[in-house]
Amino acid sequence: MVNYNVVKNFTLLVDFYELTMANGFFESGMKDNIVIFDMFFRQVPDNGEYTVVAGLEQLIEYMEDLHFSDDDIEFLKGKNIFNEEFLDYLKNFKFQCDVWAMPEGTLAFPGEPLLTVRGPAIQAQMLETMVLLTINHQSMIATKATRIVRQAQGRPVVEFGSRRAQGYSAANLGARAAYIGGCAGTANTLADKMFGVPALGTMAHSWVQMFDTELEAFRAFARVYPENCLLLVDTYDTLKEGIPNAIKVFDEEVVPRGYRPKGIRIDSGDITYITNKARKMLDDAGYPDAQIMASNSLDEYTIRTILHQGAKIDSFGVGERLITSKSSPVFGGVYKLVANVSDDGKIIPKIKISENVAKITTPGFKELYRFYDKDSKKAIADVIALRDEVIPEDNYEIFHPIYTWKRKTISNYEIRKVLVPIYEKGELVYELPSLDEIREKTKRELDTLWDETKRLDNPNEYIVDLSEKLWQLKDSLLKKHGRN
Amino acid sequence: MVNYNVVKNFTLLVDFYELTMANGFFESGMKDNIVIFDMFFRQVPDNGEYTVVAGLEQLIEYMEDLHFSDDDIEFLKGKNIFNEEFLDYLKNFKFQCDVWAMPEGTLAFPGEPLLTVRGPAIQAQMLETMVLLTINHQSMIATKATRIVRQAQGRPVVEFGSRRAQGYSAANLGARAAYIGGCAGTANTLADKMFGVPALGTMAHSWVQMFDTELEAFRAFARVYPENCLLLVDTYDTLKEGIPNAIKVFDEEVVPRGYRPKGIRIDSGDITYITNKARKMLDDAGYPDAQIMASNSLDEYTIRTILHQGAKIDSFGVGERLITSKSSPVFGGVYKLVANVSDDGKIIPKIKISENVAKITTPGFKELYRFYDKDSKKAIADVIALRDEVIPEDNYEIFHPIYTWKRKTISNYEIRKVLVPIYEKGELVYELPSLDEIREKTKRELDTLWDETKRLDNPNEYIVDLSEKLWQLKDSLLKKHGRN
Repeated sequence: MVNYNVVKNFTLLVDFYELTMANGFFESGMKDNIVIFDMFFRQVPDNGEYTVVAGLEQLIEYMEDLHFSDDDIEFLKGKNIFNEEFLDYLKNFKFQCDVWAMPEGTLAFPGEPLLTVRGPAIQAQMLETMVLLTINHQSMIATKATRIVRQAQGRPVVEFGSRRAQGYSAANLGARAAYIGGCAGTANTLADKMFGVPALGTMAHSWVQMFDTELEAFRAFARVYPENCLLLVDTYDTLKEGIPNAIKVFDEEVVPRGYRPKGIRIDSGDITYITNKARKMLDDAGYPDAQIMASNSLDEYTIRTILHQGAKIDSFGVGERLITSKSSPVFGGVYKLVANVSDDGKIIPKIKISENVAKITTPGFKELYRFYDKDSKKAIADVIALRDEVIPEDNYEIFHPIYTWKRKTISNYEIRKVLVPIYEKGELVYELPSLDEIREKTKRELDTLWDETKRLDNPNEYIVDLSEKLWQLKDSLLKKHGRN
Repeated sequence: MVNYNVVKNFTLLVDFYELTMANGFFESGMKDNIVIFDMFFRQVPDNGEYTVVAGLEQLIEYMEDLHFSDDDIEFLKGKNIFNEEFLDYLKNFKFQCDVWAMPEGTLAFPGEPLLTVRGPAIQAQMLETMVLLTINHQSMIATKATRIVRQAQGRPVVEFGSRRAQGYSAANLGARAAYIGGCAGTANTLADKMFGVPALGTMAHSWVQMFDTELEAFRAFARVYPENCLLLVDTYDTLKEGIPNAIKVFDEEVVPRGYRPKGIRIDSGDITYITNKARKMLDDAGYPDAQIMASNSLDEYTIRTILHQGAKIDSFGVGERLITSKSSPVFGGVYKLVANVSDDGKIIPKIKISENVAKITTPGFKELYRFYDKDSKKAIADVIALRDEVIPEDNYEIFHPIYTWKRKTISNYEIRKVLVPIYEKGELVYELPSLDEIREKTKRELDTLWDETKRLDNPNEYIVDLSEKLWQLKDSLLKKHGRN
């Protein structure tokens, strides 16, 4: 029995081909070749327009911890395909890459580098799986959370999905990412202990079933938690038993102890109908301040629908559809070679062609600029340029990378570089923000987008263009590889 | 910075309400109450008819390791809602539950107990999140893998999804579950080291891009790995460059070294068209033994389609759609109280009613029997009965639990109990099988199902009935709670 819980080192969480290639670079005399890789994605989940980047902290932990233990080396040796000197190299592995990345909470758009790695071929290649796994997962959940939270229109959303998460990291880091995306808390206690995401929760149906009657169950709960009395009212019959029993217990056990009840939770049935009835019953009983929490297979679409129907809900518990991003459970980030660096420091841009034009990569060592309107403070456009380009401080002509006749000149802008340095020659140079800072940043970033771009359906396309110079470079490489 | 990699103990991976309830049981004088919980699910993902149970080994690791560290206790104390004596109880936690479960690789059907826990209320309740999280995730992936492997009709399927998995456990344990479901291997090296799932992989597009030309890249690879020369041929132009270059390198670098080439991999484009062309080119060049591997956004549906179209493929690499179970990414197992046990050992069955009839639970302390036809060895039906019932050795009348007039008498059967003892009073009594034994069991179990039940579309319904006695019990509880 392998104890999964004591796996302390994810260094071997690499696709095997990263190791066969690394060994190949080594044997082909290319171990010190410097290369540049970009991580980017092609499409936003759920046909949305923006994503929120998350996961950098865990990626940094991984990079800080990169090492091959003796038994890792033994294991690889057992494969009988790796060069002895290569295994020695791994044994004495020292991380030497430069890394630039979008800080967590940054908005990212299709085709943009979220992360750039420059370093020895062997090392840069070996990061592929963990870069993608880490950023893909958390960015997907953080983005999903922003969509759900937005539809809740200011009502708190609590992440309830651990039990349906795709594994332990999905539960723990999913809770973290959901908090970044604006959730108020989580049901997962470990996520609270590890990351400080507030853990919330009161009772399940089992509490009610454990007693002979629902009334008895509510009474017992109220006696233990008079200050936090939120009762789950749908174990037997919500309207005929659950809510009347709750009101009786608020009257008899909560108020006499000097507290106001927290409210009720409803986990089944026709939420719109039941919450309207429930609201009236609570109001009539003198509890207009008692809150109604709803929690049955919700996501941004159902929340939008039931609120539109007039459901009376004060907060939401959102489970499986958030923690798995059920309606769009894959975030398709990729990690592609974009350049070699020659011994004298010259950048040799590289491209990957494909039958599928969406899979063609953008070559070169790049910088990403975001343009903000000076007055509205809203983001106007992003431009991907080569690192050595100078962007004018006013009046810049942007153009669509495919419909190149679509051009416009923008002005009255401020420019920010979106990528920041994380590692220099293997040394961490980035100061990690706290989780609450990341959560705040996400909120601020979303404020820079027009509502039209944040729509659930048919969001307005955010402009991401290439600089003229980068476009020319890409075009010339496409032509060189015979695509014209 | 919390180092996620050093989390060694998942004891706090509980929904917070499990702790508030546990504390509530404690304060309400119910800490030694014995209760019974069942885990079951209501619906098979992808509208399938069977699921393959997986994850028990990791669940056992968790149960073996259940303990609250000093800092766990400190953390809980800081919440200011837990009783001191309760925290002492946690500090000296000793697992005392009885657990029965389906061994990994067992087939499970909707409504059946996959796992039953009997023990003190506090303890049995606290297992909820980890029971569900562990079994839900791995069962979903194992089941998905069986579907994909079946459509591949004997061709090996390799799990390629780590980079798109929902977190680290999803990558590692997903690879394990996929292997249980019949995958031949994984790209994830760590899953090989930890679990012995064979890790496979040769090259990515980056290998090709790193060189000035594709031909040079192929040559270099063939020189390092002449015995394992599988070339990725779609970096630039598959038919005009990739395959001709591969053949040239097979001729000039592989064969002269005394090897036969492994083949080619194609990761984009019209797979049916390209593999037919590729097959002919390889055959004509004298390489009918060179294999073609395909790997572009595949799942059971696309594999069925392209094989039906006549694609010439020898093996499949399946990524995101397997590792996230993309078309159905939630396995909805639940964990419900089904009985209290009184001080004198009497079972008091419990039910949960719901507006949604699918959410009504089956009460009582239960046993699950699977009936096999003595001649065909195929499974005929499952019957859920109360633990104290005796099932006749021949001629047993089964009936549909909803359409109770649908009855038939089965005979000429062998009966097996599907649940086996895992823990007795907190002691592990189960001998864990090896991963290869689990994989073999899955195969054997699938052989007991008729093909009609394994269809992708409109599978034949497998019979899962309640015993007369259990049906009567459930009916009486439904009536008692006023549902008639």
